[in-house]
Amino acid sequence: MCRIAAYLGPPIALNRFLIEPEHSLVHQSWAPEELRYARLNADGFGFAWIGTDDNPASYVNTLPIWSDLNLPQLARNLVSDLWIGSVRSATEGSEVSHANTQPFCDKELIFTHNGFIRGFQSTYRKQLTDQLQTGIIATIRGNTDSEYLFAVFRQILADDNDLSVEAALITLARKMDTAVDDSATLLNFIVSEGQRLYALRHAVNEPCPSLYYTTDNESFPGGQIIASERLDQSEFWQPVPEHHLLIIDRDEPPELVAL
Amino acid sequence: MCRIAAYLGPPIALNRFLIEPEHSLVHQSWAPEELRYARLNADGFGFAWIGTDDNPASYVNTLPIWSDLNLPQLARNLVSDLWIGSVRSATEGSEVSHANTQPFCDKELIFTHNGFIRGFQSTYRKQLTDQLQTGIIATIRGNTDSEYLFAVFRQILADDNDLSVEAALITLARKMDTAVDDSATLLNFIVSEGQRLYALRHAVNEPCPSLYYTTDNESFPGGQIIASERLDQSEFWQPVPEHHLLIIDRDEPPELVAL
Amino acid sequence: MCRIAAYLGPPIALNRFLIEPEHSLVHQSWAPEELRYARLNADGFGFAWIGTDDNPASYVNTLPIWSDLNLPQLARNLVSDLWIGSVRSATEGSEVSHANTQPFCDKELIFTHNGFIRGFQSTYRKQLTDQLQTGIIATIRGNTDSEYLFAVFRQILADDNDLSVEAALITLARKMDTAVDDSATLLNFIVSEGQRLYALRHAVNEPCPSLYYTTDNESFPGGQIIASERLDQSEFWQPVPEHHLLIIDRDEPPELVAL
Amino acid sequence: MCRIAAYLGPPIALNRFLIEPEHSLVHQSWAPEELRYARLNADGFGFAWIGTDDNPASYVNTLPIWSDLNLPQLARNLVSDLWIGSVRSATEGSEVSHANTQPFCDKELIFTHNGFIRGFQSTYRKQLTDQLQTGIIATIRGNTDSEYLFAVFRQILADDNDLSVEAALITLARKMDTAVDDSATLLNFIVSEGQRLYALRHAVNEPCPSLYYTTDNESFPGGQIIASERLDQSEFWQPVPEHHLLIIDRDEPPELVAL
Repeated sequence: MCRIAAYLGPPIALNRFLIEPEHSLVHQSWAPEELRYARLNADGFGFAWIGTDDNPASYVNTLPIWSDLNLPQLARNLVSDLWIGSVRSATEGSEVSHANTQPFCDKELIFTHNGFIRGFQSTYRKQLTDQLQTGIIATIRGNTDSEYLFAVFRQILADDNDLSVEAALITLARKMDTAVDDSATLLNFIVSEGQRLYALRHAVNEPCPSLYYTTDNESFPGGQIIASERLDQSEFWQPVPEHHLLIIDRDEPPELVAL
Repeated sequence: MCRIAAYLGPPIALNRFLIEPEHSLVHQSWAPEELRYARLNADGFGFAWIGTDDNPASYVNTLPIWSDLNLPQLARNLVSDLWIGSVRSATEGSEVSHANTQPFCDKELIFTHNGFIRGFQSTYRKQLTDQLQTGIIATIRGNTDSEYLFAVFRQILADDNDLSVEAALITLARKMDTAVDDSATLLNFIVSEGQRLYALRHAVNEPCPSLYYTTDNESFPGGQIIASERLDQSEFWQPVPEHHLLIIDRDEPPELVAL
Repeated sequence: MCRIAAYLGPPIALNRFLIEPEHSLVHQSWAPEELRYARLNADGFGFAWIGTDDNPASYVNTLPIWSDLNLPQLARNLVSDLWIGSVRSATEGSEVSHANTQPFCDKELIFTHNGFIRGFQSTYRKQLTDQLQTGIIATIRGNTDSEYLFAVFRQILADDNDLSVEAALITLARKMDTAVDDSATLLNFIVSEGQRLYALRHAVNEPCPSLYYTTDNESFPGGQIIASERLDQSEFWQPVPEHHLLIIDRDEPPELVAL
Repeated sequence: MCRIAAYLGPPIALNRFLIEPEHSLVHQSWAPEELRYARLNADGFGFAWIGTDDNPASYVNTLPIWSDLNLPQLARNLVSDLWIGSVRSATEGSEVSHANTQPFCDKELIFTHNGFIRGFQSTYRKQLTDQLQTGIIATIRGNTDSEYLFAVFRQILADDNDLSVEAALITLARKMDTAVDDSATLLNFIVSEGQRLYALRHAVNEPCPSLYYTTDNESFPGGQIIASERLDQSEFWQPVPEHHLLIIDRDEPPELVAL
């Protein structure tokens, strides 16, 4: 389990998004309020953005977010109009390591997962691996269910060049629905290709993890935010409905799609 | 590429084996003499031994061996009659991480590899993965060729309960001979099940990496040592012949088996 | 603030002391029950013991104790009749680093502090430094109040060769009583020279941090334990009285000395 | 000993300065050509710049520079018109740690030192400490001679509000000339207050470490660079004369001041 959040809007420094909100991801790392299955998110953290070269970029660290001595200075100086962040609570069997820390990126996508697949290592890891082509297997660095879900997601996209990001995310959810038998499976995701944010709130055999969004927050004028837990006490946060995909666009109103 | 070494003999403190020799693995980390394809072994290190509970135990760190502030004190206090050590030079594509640092252990075996498979990620990783059963895939933590070779080795043993460690090692070498086409493949290994040391010096499409042993070294009375580079200037070091398996036993003279 | 603990008795493996108790230091790192001024002890950890060469030895790591992948294997294999452990909650101004993580050792002593001096950096650091001789200043590696307290403690011993450890600890407490004006100052210590454990429960301008001991715990036959929080629900834990020094000896009953 | 470098000119991404030159600081970390007293600069690295808020900012990591998985992405996305970088070779007695890794910053200055004071811990540390006021002692985090030199430098500035950076640097050199008796003392520095680069090439009782600069390098149009070793084979690199201070200004030709 983890806590995740994302921002889309006018360019802001990272600290505005990641550190300054009263219930920021930093705060959620040691004082989460809606976290089940864990007590802390102290097993590393990361953030990703779209770089000056229009490619995804990420930074991850295995320390608790509050211990990163470089972060305050990076956070004052990195500016982007799109941020995705994560603070991690490691699931047993997937150690604290750089490779196991989100967000994940490839050359086009940023991907972060909040959840787990019960029995992943013992049961589903081989099954998911078998669906992956050589070129995608080659990119897997660690051993989290999250990284394999990202691999399956990219495989889905690789298999059908015409598929949209949102359709691929729904396909991923559908595929997991049938794959996991009766294993508890929590599948909250935030994904971006640089233009829009796609957030799925979903679970199988369990209630969905919390997920909220706001398009009208006075701390972020013109910006839209998605987060596992509300970053502040503004009244305009709304829950993403369970088993729904939320699409946040720069110019369109937010769209909700039922799975 | 890496430098590897092992000791079997009367119980000695780790520092005797790992640190004190004039051309110890510490020295080989920053001043190797027979290393090809790399200049340093500064991408982490590790050592393994048979614990007080008769199970393999290991310690690995991603820092250069000379920077580990705990090592001097551990090395004075850990005592064993069997040591296997490694200092790492990371191959491109396999980052510096705990999971990618050797030696590897399971509940019965210690395994360390010096070498690489050219084209592992892009070509052979999927091919090797396809040979592995669910339970073995579940244990893979990182993304090195070395860890996949350890997985294939364990799969070979799992497939035939009667197979000896030495026969499994030879089977591994034979399997790789046919698998790798014309890719440069360096396959030096030191393996132990706690009783004996098994060292293979082998390569495909390339000369073998260096590997030496001694059974008569005055710094290690009654002990036998295998090492990528001779640990000192004693005259009794001998090269393991290329494409040979060396077996070191507590009570028997060393045995050499041609592949 | 931190949680600290110590063991003296028949030789036991580290895991018996550090990991296995139901409210071990591992458990106290993420679920402390009597910790004030902090919520976690996730800013590194360490342990110290008397080595096979009769010198103090220590191991410290800046990760949360639950994330150290080497610890389980070290803890099964390191055996001692004297253990001192600490899990850290960093005080603002003293970053997470190896040098700032306890226990501290010199060639004769193991020292660990649970507490803080409010205003240490801004006010008292220079004042304490001015009392230290060149040779002791030379050994200071980090910037915690704890390390400076260890330095003052060693200076006290260096200034009077006839002083006992317990007298030096009382002198340290007295010196701080007068030094700190009205700054909140928490001064729980566990110290050993290898023969006995000396534990001080003391504070100035604040209540003392919790500290317990037991000389009759069925999980540790023949052993005696001191700990910030009781390691289990055994009925034989007793609080160290506030402003008292507790001396634990192998052969004598525990002794309590009022400050 | 270390290798240091700095850039002043039109804004460029960090990778242009730190990574891409053929003999960049990355290359100098494992293949330095003019390094005496050490063979590598693999004990951490750092860089500093003037942030978007006009304050100095820095990033340091204790890993070898080639192992930092975040660096490539940061280096593509951080842009500045002033960069100062360092790759470290630790001097005995000052461990690999964040606090011991340069560059150092305060709210106004960036400071990096290439060199050492022989006998610093045993002899000169107390002597330098005694010259420092409470507020400056409070900021010292580690135990390197370099950090104490930065502290003395700030004390010199604090003692005379009218003193220029260059005058303070010369005062620092003069003060050390008389302080160090016959101890080998290497004192190359690069300092900036955000407007200019000040580089000192100096030593006492030893030859000066190498230091070069160029104001006409085709890889850096309009930029000026100072570096321990020439970053490329351009013919326009010149040595800073021994015992001289070099001042690089955006609008003025470089100025050399003899000590």
